[in-house]
Amino acid sequence: MKPSIPKGTRDFSHKEVNLRNFVKEKIKSNFEIFGFLPIETPSMEKLEVLTGKYGDDGEKLIFKILSNGEKLSKADLESLGEKKYSKFANSISEKALRYDLTVPFSRYVVQHQNDLTFPFKRYQLQSVWRADRPQYGRFQEFLQCDADIVGTVSNWQEIELCMLYDKIIQDLCINGVTLRINNRKILYGFSKLLGFDNRFNEFTLILDKLDKISIDGVINELTNKNFDKQKIKKIEYFLSVDGTNKFKLEKINEAFVDSKINLEGLRELNFIIDTIEKIGGLESIDLKFDLSLARGLSYYTGTIFELVVSSFPEVGSIGGGGRYDNLTASFGKKNLSGVGISIGFERLMMVLDKFKLFPREVNGSLEVLIANFGSHTALICNSILKMIRSKGIKSEFYPVHDKLKKQLSYANNKNIKYVIIIGDEETKTEEFILKYMKDGTQKKHKMSQLESILLSNLKK
Amino acid sequence: MKPSIPKGTRDFSHKEVNLRNFVKEKIKSNFEIFGFLPIETPSMEKLEVLTGKYGDDGEKLIFKILSNGEKLSKADLESLGEKKYSKFANSISEKALRYDLTVPFSRYVVQHQNDLTFPFKRYQLQSVWRADRPQYGRFQEFLQCDADIVGTVSNWQEIELCMLYDKIIQDLCINGVTLRINNRKILYGFSKLLGFDNRFNEFTLILDKLDKISIDGVINELTNKNFDKQKIKKIEYFLSVDGTNKFKLEKINEAFVDSKINLEGLRELNFIIDTIEKIGGLESIDLKFDLSLARGLSYYTGTIFELVVSSFPEVGSIGGGGRYDNLTASFGKKNLSGVGISIGFERLMMVLDKFKLFPREVNGSLEVLIANFGSHTALICNSILKMIRSKGIKSEFYPVHDKLKKQLSYANNKNIKYVIIIGDEETKTEEFILKYMKDGTQKKHKMSQLESILLSNLKK
Repeated sequence: MKPSIPKGTRDFSHKEVNLRNFVKEKIKSNFEIFGFLPIETPSMEKLEVLTGKYGDDGEKLIFKILSNGEKLSKADLESLGEKKYSKFANSISEKALRYDLTVPFSRYVVQHQNDLTFPFKRYQLQSVWRADRPQYGRFQEFLQCDADIVGTVSNWQEIELCMLYDKIIQDLCINGVTLRINNRKILYGFSKLLGFDNRFNEFTLILDKLDKISIDGVINELTNKNFDKQKIKKIEYFLSVDGTNKFKLEKINEAFVDSKINLEGLRELNFIIDTIEKIGGLESIDLKFDLSLARGLSYYTGTIFELVVSSFPEVGSIGGGGRYDNLTASFGKKNLSGVGISIGFERLMMVLDKFKLFPREVNGSLEVLIANFGSHTALICNSILKMIRSKGIKSEFYPVHDKLKKQLSYANNKNIKYVIIIGDEETKTEEFILKYMKDGTQKKHKMSQLESILLSNLKK
Repeated sequence: MKPSIPKGTRDFSHKEVNLRNFVKEKIKSNFEIFGFLPIETPSMEKLEVLTGKYGDDGEKLIFKILSNGEKLSKADLESLGEKKYSKFANSISEKALRYDLTVPFSRYVVQHQNDLTFPFKRYQLQSVWRADRPQYGRFQEFLQCDADIVGTVSNWQEIELCMLYDKIIQDLCINGVTLRINNRKILYGFSKLLGFDNRFNEFTLILDKLDKISIDGVINELTNKNFDKQKIKKIEYFLSVDGTNKFKLEKINEAFVDSKINLEGLRELNFIIDTIEKIGGLESIDLKFDLSLARGLSYYTGTIFELVVSSFPEVGSIGGGGRYDNLTASFGKKNLSGVGISIGFERLMMVLDKFKLFPREVNGSLEVLIANFGSHTALICNSILKMIRSKGIKSEFYPVHDKLKKQLSYANNKNIKYVIIIGDEETKTEEFILKYMKDGTQKKHKMSQLESILLSNLKK
């Protein structure tokens, strides 16, 4: 039986690795241009760091690491008997695989606070693991790319993050991308205005489904959950308001003026949207205020973002983020506001693949194969090999004296650009044959010209 | 209480990440110049893939992943009661973290054999995890860098790997590096000659300690373990032979000629050492035939390597590898000889650190901070920011209107090269101040010249 890998995980061939590296590089270089510095945290965190951060449903998806040897004798068999699996698991496990990058980052900030300069801007490109049911675009091990700023409440950071998304999308040449933006304070003010504030989480979770079930669906669900019918009509009105961001914000502003409810969220959002417009707008992204955007994670307290590709909705959002005021507090450091964005790397790859946006040549294949004609030419071949490698040319010597046809077919399969052929005759005449694999043409040259000919050919 | 991370794991600050990336890049680019292509395998492998590959001691160090939910009901409590912890663990775990890169690579080769071109050359830079007791230079999560060729018995591959090690060491400017080389066939022939072949593994494990306990220690241990005294004297003689590789190989050859024992190992080693000399030798590495080199892993069947830094023995070997003829057989594919080398990345970092071999400037810090003087200059500042970022300059806008002193101190702490200052006065006169943080000098320029002045200053 053929060996295999765990469900929801993937092997990556060199072609895939090269494509992934190409996209990683685009993301990294833009993160750096925007002043974010890279950090890395361990794959494993102590259980206590991850516990209580992701809600009950999230927590079930954490991969726990089994303790070794003797420590297993502490297994809590009572919990096992009572089918309290999580409690049982915690008795024989002390650490777990990273579930996201935000919580380890908050842990990092608090742990190393004395060594950091605030506002602290960091980016992280690392894998996370979730015991989710694998499906289209969803894996158990996948890459996340996060950029966060911690230590300032300035909304210039939200503007930075919008521009950062924009620059990355522009660099990757993706069309039809929308950045949905909202503010949890508006949602909260809204729910207070409507008298839903005691059911805030429930309300936002239903609202968040608008994308999938449309306005009617949201109205139905609110009705079924016994929200006040008069109030639901008001929501319907605001959700239906269409037009420019300004127009929509004005409409909501009108509602708030009467009710004198906290206008902070509106002010923040107005500043962000207005300033972005004033400095020339975004190039490749449509920034769209969307009252129905709520984001599942409850730690967001201000601006929230979601990045979607309108022409490829099946893939879901390719990014998201927001401002969180209390995340470091759970590690003992209060009053440290943070804001960040995440890029869903795997989904981004699917978008690039669907719209054929990968460059034709992602540098990866070999440039030169030197054919092997046995021991009496092998030494010359290897002197050449050494010389061309010192010029940084990706090259190799075919390992055995097979028939030339087989060697050429090897070069073909590996997509190698040139084959250098030096047989007995060429050795005598001090020449070499350079074969261009793409069209099979070949030409004899003087050995003394090898370096210059090779370099000028490879530049083409 | 401050949060912390699991023992044996590490957080990496941006300075550390940048240094690590610098070294990774050196290794990767040389792997590629030598014709190796990158692949990646999942962090988690099925337990059955890893089981039986690392010996009993190794197997105890594998981090197993706890199964989720209901699956825990299958816990084998009988084994737990009998303190058979490994069996108990296997009843509630189906997968584990990668212990090395060689076994997952062998699994990869067999699983994807129909899509690969043989000889298949791949490299991998990925983390591995071992539940080892953390100590100097030993971590529970660490990076390995492997290059392997599978599918040819040609000893040109060993030559390639020696040259690859050489190129990497040369690029990193490390002095005093020795590549110890031996062949397991010689060791086997030798043990047969001496009549130890039924205790081969035991014999090689003692021999392998020579580095630490010297010849006398090895002789003592062999004597204590009741190896034949006459034979031990013969070993002592061969271990004591000093001189060039050629001289040592000749001495052993003499012994073998009489006994007519398999000379394959000697022929292989002679070819490798001789050919390397003929193509000009190694630049930065002393290649040294060492009869006492045995390597712990039993899957090696031919050439074996170990890379050590003579002037820093405490760190242990910084690399190793060898030829393995039967590794893919355990996954159902026979007759696929492989050979490879590994670089111990963490130890290599320690060597570079000890001898201060990191370049002074590993690109990472920001180039420009634009100071913040409040809302009426913020828009101009952000237009400038947008422009200089489009030129790829790493830059940011200070998020709030703090005192200039605080903003400059921020730039200083973050090692930012230049600060651009545009206050009310500069806005009126259409000028800007460029402050060079290294010496604190500053100069006023015309705003229209910003791009050219900044670019030419950054090039310095």
